[in-house]
Amino acid sequence: MIGIAVVGYGYWGPNIVRNFQEIEGAQVLVCCDLDEQRLARVKQKYPSIRVTTDYEEILNDPKVAAVAVVTPVATHYEFARAALERGKHVLVEKPMAASVAEAEKLIELAAKHSLILMVNHTFIYTGAVRKMKEIIEKGDLGDLYYFDSVRINLGLIQRDVNVLWDLAPHDVAILGYLVNEAPVSVCANGACHTGNGIEDIAYLTVYFNSGLIAHFHNNWIAPAKIRTILVGGSKKMIVYDDMEASEKVKVYDKGIEVASTEAAHNALISYRLGDMWAPRLEQTEALRLVASEFVDCIESGRRPVTDGISGLSVVRILEASEMSIKRRGKEVKL
Amino acid sequence: MIGIAVVGYGYWGPNIVRNFQEIEGAQVLVCCDLDEQRLARVKQKYPSIRVTTDYEEILNDPKVAAVAVVTPVATHYEFARAALERGKHVLVEKPMAASVAEAEKLIELAAKHSLILMVNHTFIYTGAVRKMKEIIEKGDLGDLYYFDSVRINLGLIQRDVNVLWDLAPHDVAILGYLVNEAPVSVCANGACHTGNGIEDIAYLTVYFNSGLIAHFHNNWIAPAKIRTILVGGSKKMIVYDDMEASEKVKVYDKGIEVASTEAAHNALISYRLGDMWAPRLEQTEALRLVASEFVDCIESGRRPVTDGISGLSVVRILEASEMSIKRRGKEVKL
Amino acid sequence: MIGIAVVGYGYWGPNIVRNFQEIEGAQVLVCCDLDEQRLARVKQKYPSIRVTTDYEEILNDPKVAAVAVVTPVATHYEFARAALERGKHVLVEKPMAASVAEAEKLIELAAKHSLILMVNHTFIYTGAVRKMKEIIEKGDLGDLYYFDSVRINLGLIQRDVNVLWDLAPHDVAILGYLVNEAPVSVCANGACHTGNGIEDIAYLTVYFNSGLIAHFHNNWIAPAKIRTILVGGSKKMIVYDDMEASEKVKVYDKGIEVASTEAAHNALISYRLGDMWAPRLEQTEALRLVASEFVDCIESGRRPVTDGISGLSVVRILEASEMSIKRRGKEVKL
Amino acid sequence: MIGIAVVGYGYWGPNIVRNFQEIEGAQVLVCCDLDEQRLARVKQKYPSIRVTTDYEEILNDPKVAAVAVVTPVATHYEFARAALERGKHVLVEKPMAASVAEAEKLIELAAKHSLILMVNHTFIYTGAVRKMKEIIEKGDLGDLYYFDSVRINLGLIQRDVNVLWDLAPHDVAILGYLVNEAPVSVCANGACHTGNGIEDIAYLTVYFNSGLIAHFHNNWIAPAKIRTILVGGSKKMIVYDDMEASEKVKVYDKGIEVASTEAAHNALISYRLGDMWAPRLEQTEALRLVASEFVDCIESGRRPVTDGISGLSVVRILEASEMSIKRRGKEVKL
Repeated sequence: MIGIAVVGYGYWGPNIVRNFQEIEGAQVLVCCDLDEQRLARVKQKYPSIRVTTDYEEILNDPKVAAVAVVTPVATHYEFARAALERGKHVLVEKPMAASVAEAEKLIELAAKHSLILMVNHTFIYTGAVRKMKEIIEKGDLGDLYYFDSVRINLGLIQRDVNVLWDLAPHDVAILGYLVNEAPVSVCANGACHTGNGIEDIAYLTVYFNSGLIAHFHNNWIAPAKIRTILVGGSKKMIVYDDMEASEKVKVYDKGIEVASTEAAHNALISYRLGDMWAPRLEQTEALRLVASEFVDCIESGRRPVTDGISGLSVVRILEASEMSIKRRGKEVKL
Repeated sequence: MIGIAVVGYGYWGPNIVRNFQEIEGAQVLVCCDLDEQRLARVKQKYPSIRVTTDYEEILNDPKVAAVAVVTPVATHYEFARAALERGKHVLVEKPMAASVAEAEKLIELAAKHSLILMVNHTFIYTGAVRKMKEIIEKGDLGDLYYFDSVRINLGLIQRDVNVLWDLAPHDVAILGYLVNEAPVSVCANGACHTGNGIEDIAYLTVYFNSGLIAHFHNNWIAPAKIRTILVGGSKKMIVYDDMEASEKVKVYDKGIEVASTEAAHNALISYRLGDMWAPRLEQTEALRLVASEFVDCIESGRRPVTDGISGLSVVRILEASEMSIKRRGKEVKL
Repeated sequence: MIGIAVVGYGYWGPNIVRNFQEIEGAQVLVCCDLDEQRLARVKQKYPSIRVTTDYEEILNDPKVAAVAVVTPVATHYEFARAALERGKHVLVEKPMAASVAEAEKLIELAAKHSLILMVNHTFIYTGAVRKMKEIIEKGDLGDLYYFDSVRINLGLIQRDVNVLWDLAPHDVAILGYLVNEAPVSVCANGACHTGNGIEDIAYLTVYFNSGLIAHFHNNWIAPAKIRTILVGGSKKMIVYDDMEASEKVKVYDKGIEVASTEAAHNALISYRLGDMWAPRLEQTEALRLVASEFVDCIESGRRPVTDGISGLSVVRILEASEMSIKRRGKEVKL
Repeated sequence: MIGIAVVGYGYWGPNIVRNFQEIEGAQVLVCCDLDEQRLARVKQKYPSIRVTTDYEEILNDPKVAAVAVVTPVATHYEFARAALERGKHVLVEKPMAASVAEAEKLIELAAKHSLILMVNHTFIYTGAVRKMKEIIEKGDLGDLYYFDSVRINLGLIQRDVNVLWDLAPHDVAILGYLVNEAPVSVCANGACHTGNGIEDIAYLTVYFNSGLIAHFHNNWIAPAKIRTILVGGSKKMIVYDDMEASEKVKVYDKGIEVASTEAAHNALISYRLGDMWAPRLEQTEALRLVASEFVDCIESGRRPVTDGISGLSVVRILEASEMSIKRRGKEVKL
């Protein structure tokens, strides 16, 4: 039984606590937050969980084998670093850290102490994304041509980070999970309409050497909630609509056929239309699988699917996009 | 009765002929194309229309008062220039010309000879776009924050122009029609997957000094046909979905409220949710209104809504976007 | 080359003329209507087609081998009867006739004179319905459990027939085409809101001995246009949504499993969820196939898919439903 | 503080307990179920709530002022009757009872002992249904013409009641809430495909003297989850789609205009198309409002919106529909 401490019991913390409570092999021992009211809520719901406002108490507790960091981005590094240094495994919310330097330092610490460092990119564990991975791995899509993500809604929660840091981590992580190729550069554009210099709408392009292009549209001030990813390949194409109640993933047997480069120059390109197929998706709550993965990695010593390296690659793109957006779309190499 | 000559009877030409035939005040006298089979089709359908493969014949015909140029982009300039120089009014397909220089020359010629020069940006004449214009003009949206357009589908028709030159003119023209502010610069990103150097997917950002940001996503190799425009303002937001059978335009009484710049810094931003409203739209075929507008402008001497100037501003953005896309998103001033 | 006469050039007639003009093997020789303005429209569009207000002229013309009857229902019988008696093949609009007696008489006449009698149930020739037929014929759905159709919209065109006679023929014909079992009885309910006794909303249930149940909802005063058919079987289920631009037909790998009657009594029924699949559909215009089928049957002498017998079975259900609706849903045997 | 006892902790019981726990003025004192495992779940989640398998214990507890009956339909009457006879207020799940006789008896008992008897027709308390009521009460729809409900899905949970008793109570209660007119008769059709005689698909028509017609489609073996209500009036029409994430209620400014009965006979009926409007809906959880309404009625002595009388009218329609369905749609007077 692995003893878990949860740091941060705001919007997302309760989901983390609930899922660790509901799996085998782990138990939340203590919950830490600076807000006493939140801690009272923990006590009411889980009388058996200890609460504290003192993080040091957690670090000193030998029964705590692992810490889940569920705090604002700016503080991820400090909480995670301290835990790793005290020999605790760490599950940290996304994005992993506020900079590449911080993320690299955490990876280094975890390696040094032989600890599990896992980033909670929850979407990677959904039935929809795992099914997409399976389809792409089989080669059904052919060569990958584009990855287009739109994640927008109305819900401006003012923060110290812009809309890309807030919304893009989900989709950038999905991109990294689905695609076995390292991106080479990014261009980002955006605008701020509140006078505080923090972009509320942003567009991010990620270039790959193979010709694959990825694009992300994030917007805090949109009239409707849209969460769509298109993945286009030479043979088939996928539409993933997370707002659909069922049939979230649709595979279109459509593609373009280019006989040769010479043919392309001579306009001998044809396209193909076929059936559409919506595979049945695994329904298990993604966060349940996150909790299980973390516990299983601690027990077995294997690397989590969403390990520090994958978390770092997301931060690297976010950091570069922030540089690009301030320079009006200037390409930034990764 | 204004005598019309139509040059080009390919995919779009038949619609132009049909609409000029069906309005009062105009008559298609002659149709010109290099393809004899196409001309045979004209004869079969409209025995009264003369056909020719010789453009000079049209220019020499004193009964032809106006020429509709419905040919590939690369030839717009030559056909329109010749017609203007011979004293004929011109309706030219979008985009108006293959370069800013060409477009400027046509405007100059029309002015010099006091002729009507109109660009067929058909979408401007749809009930949906005119209703959006009406709503924005009334100030219902408040300050404009963003204009986001997606126009994608599967249907790679190989050309000498990239996907932006093919699909973006519609939406860039709508942007110009709806917004009373001149754009200042563009950034464009894209990729080619056929080996011929012509982008089949592209993303274009247009900056304005007011903080308004416009973005265009065009894709020839998409699994589904999507044609959506979002227009966000401080008070209300519009979703225009051209694939909807009815209720193409939806106005959301949603917005964000920023008390002051200082408030923004202190996170005092709130958002507002309200009703949604889908106005009834005028159903008249847009191309019918295009034909009427052209005839009416010839008769009255007034400028068309989609005159050469507006056509030029579209070409200017396309030309700049092509420069930017070749430099991986580098900002190009307009 | 089969000479065709078209009787009736109102809303639907132009489509019939156009399609016969565009296929091989047939030619529209003459068009008959009592309205001179409509005939003028024929002349303008098809200078080669003769026009007349005198049906007798058609019957006397030896070059007319077949007559397409595109008039109001009440007159179908008289026009078709006269044509058959004068040795002309007949294509008649749906519903075939205003009563079972009329329909039976036409079938008898066609048999007596060895002529083709075809009913224009156009939907049977759509790619969607033909694909559904193919899937059901293969047994993919298992035992058929239900057929549920909704065809509603706003568009009260006052007639001498109620909403079932107007809208249900499409779906009743589809039912007859898809299902190889004769219905045994009907129950219909409805209401009239205009004070003229003609139902503007109606619900029709059709019973089969196998346990299959079919239901039709037709409504002239609905806020939105809905055209949906659900076909449920023991193994799979189909949703056919005719308002979808693409993916009109979706096949759900869902079903219920009943081990045995005893199991059912003991509640041992389970259900199964699986993939969804939307087959690519043939895009040819259905009316083109109708015209080809008619011409092909005349040439070969074989029976059309939508022959008089199938047309009669639709009329039989409509007639019975009218009796039932007047008796508030009382079951009427077929 | 009103002491509440909850009888039945199956699928729905936990929601009842949670909502009574979260409002002011009430407290769940005891929870009763025959299943010890369920009671263990209560204890784990709510250590302060007493559990028991003995209903008599609840009836004997003077601190229990009210009982919430959350058990299968067949047992509603016995639990509710016993509670009312022992002076406890009763909130009973829908449908209120298994027969009109039972429902009438409960109403009588509540009146005799001056107790609150409330039926948990939860949908009546949703923002969507309350908004529809508000719109209809204002007369915006004009004369009511039809009420059409579809509530279908896949999820055959074998019971002792048919699909109408299972799914129709929601919509029949909504009909009763929205319409101020008593229905006069019903016709119902249906079929059973499992061999146990319990209909898994059913269609119910309800007639009113005014010409209003209501219809219900319920299906346990449908491929997709559909929950839609159309309400049509002479002036406007409503579409209520409960599966929509937002904009569940849409009001269409559409209608038909009949000048007079004579005009109707002469086909002088026109229709009107206008805007569509989706009002913002109150988001409070409906069950929260149910709990509050119950507590408020106990405290104030006023009748609940969903009192025994309204519950009875639902049962009356269900009972009549069961008679009709066994006689193949024969009209049954109410």
